[in-house]
Amino acid sequence: MTERSTPRRPGRPRGAEQGDLRARILAAATAEFGERGYEAASMRAIARRAGVDPALVHHYFDDKQRLVAEVVEVPLRPDRLVRTALDGPIDELGARLVRAVLTAWDSPAVRPAAVAALRSAIGHGPVARMLREFLRGEIMHRIAVRLADGDLDEAAAADAELRAELAASQLVGVIMVRYVLEFEPLASLPVDELVARVGPAVQWHLTGRPPGA
Amino acid sequence: MTERSTPRRPGRPRGAEQGDLRARILAAATAEFGERGYEAASMRAIARRAGVDPALVHHYFDDKQRLVAEVVEVPLRPDRLVRTALDGPIDELGARLVRAVLTAWDSPAVRPAAVAALRSAIGHGPVARMLREFLRGEIMHRIAVRLADGDLDEAAAADAELRAELAASQLVGVIMVRYVLEFEPLASLPVDELVARVGPAVQWHLTGRPPGA
Repeated sequence: MTERSTPRRPGRPRGAEQGDLRARILAAATAEFGERGYEAASMRAIARRAGVDPALVHHYFDDKQRLVAEVVEVPLRPDRLVRTALDGPIDELGARLVRAVLTAWDSPAVRPAAVAALRSAIGHGPVARMLREFLRGEIMHRIAVRLADGDLDEAAAADAELRAELAASQLVGVIMVRYVLEFEPLASLPVDELVARVGPAVQWHLTGRPPGA
Repeated sequence: MTERSTPRRPGRPRGAEQGDLRARILAAATAEFGERGYEAASMRAIARRAGVDPALVHHYFDDKQRLVAEVVEVPLRPDRLVRTALDGPIDELGARLVRAVLTAWDSPAVRPAAVAALRSAIGHGPVARMLREFLRGEIMHRIAVRLADGDLDEAAAADAELRAELAASQLVGVIMVRYVLEFEPLASLPVDELVARVGPAVQWHLTGRPPGA
C-alpha cells in the first residue's frame, strides 16, 4: 500500500467509514508486530502505517495489549486477567491464578481462539515472536514485580523472575493437557478441584512455601 | 503401491537390500499410525502394508514404541526414560522424572527433533493423534500404574491416572517454557537447580504429600 492510496485522515470518522478504518488499523498492527515484535512496536508507528492519526488508534483499541488480543482474535485479555488475580493476599495467589486462567479458558467463547493462539505462540513466524514478547512483558514480568513487592525475604525476591516463569510453566502445562492434548480425566475435572490440586504447586513456585504450610 | 510391486519376502534380507526394506517398513508404519492411530496400529498390519514378514518388522524396530520414535525422527525413547525413572523410591519419583526429562531434552542431539515432535503433537493431523495416544499409553498410564502399586492409601491410588496427568502437566510446562518459548532465566538454569525447584511440585502431584514433608 502506498502513501497515495492511504491518505492521512485526522479527526474522528463517522458512519460506515469506521469499519474500514478499524480494519486498516488492525492490518497495520499485524504488519508492525510481525516486523518489529511486540516490545518494539508502538501505537504511533501503527498509526503511521495505517495512515491515520495516533489518537484514532487509541480510540479504537485503547492500548498495545488490546491490539494483540485483536490481532490473534482471542476474546480474552490475559494481561487484565493476571492483573486482577495479582490483587489479594500473596499466600493465595497460586489458587487465584489457576482459577482465573481455567475459568477464562473453559469459556466456549474463548477456548477455540485461545488454543489457536497457543499453537501460534509455539510455532515459528512473526505471530509467535509477538505473543512470546507479550507473555514475557505483560504476564511473567507483572507476576515477578508483585512477588518482589511482597513480604518475601531477599533471596526470594531476587529470583522473582524465575519464580514467575516456574509458576507460568505449571499453568501452561495444565492448559496443554486440558485444552490441547485433552487427556482425561484432567480435561473434564471441575475448576474447583483443579484449583485445589494445581494451586499448591503454583504457590510453591511463587513463594517457595510448601503447599498448605 | 500394489501387491505386485511389493511382493512378500520372508526371511532375513542381505546387503544393500536392507536399507530399502527398512525404509519401506517405516513408510508403512507412518501410514498405519496415520490412519489408525497408535493404539489400534499393530506390528502385523504394518508388516502386511510393507509386504514383509512380521518377524522382519520386529527385527528392525523391536516394538511399536521404537517405531514411533523412528517415525517422528526423535533420537529418544520417552517410554524407556520414564520406565527407568519409575524404578526407585516413590518419594523421590518427582525429582527423578524432572532430571530424566531435562537431561534428555538438554542433549543437542535430541532437542531440535524433540521440539519438532512436540509441535506436531500440539497440531492437527495424523501425527498429532499418534503422539497423543503414545503419550497416554506409554507415559501417563505407566506412571499411574506405578502410583497405584505404591504404598499409597486407597483414595490416592484411585485417582492415580489424574495424578499422573497433573505430574505430566508440570513436566510439559517446563519443557514449553525452557525449550519452546525459551524464556530466561529458566531456559539457562542448570538441571540440578531445576530438579530442586520443579521436583517438589511434581512430587506433590504424584503423592499428594507436600514437598519436603
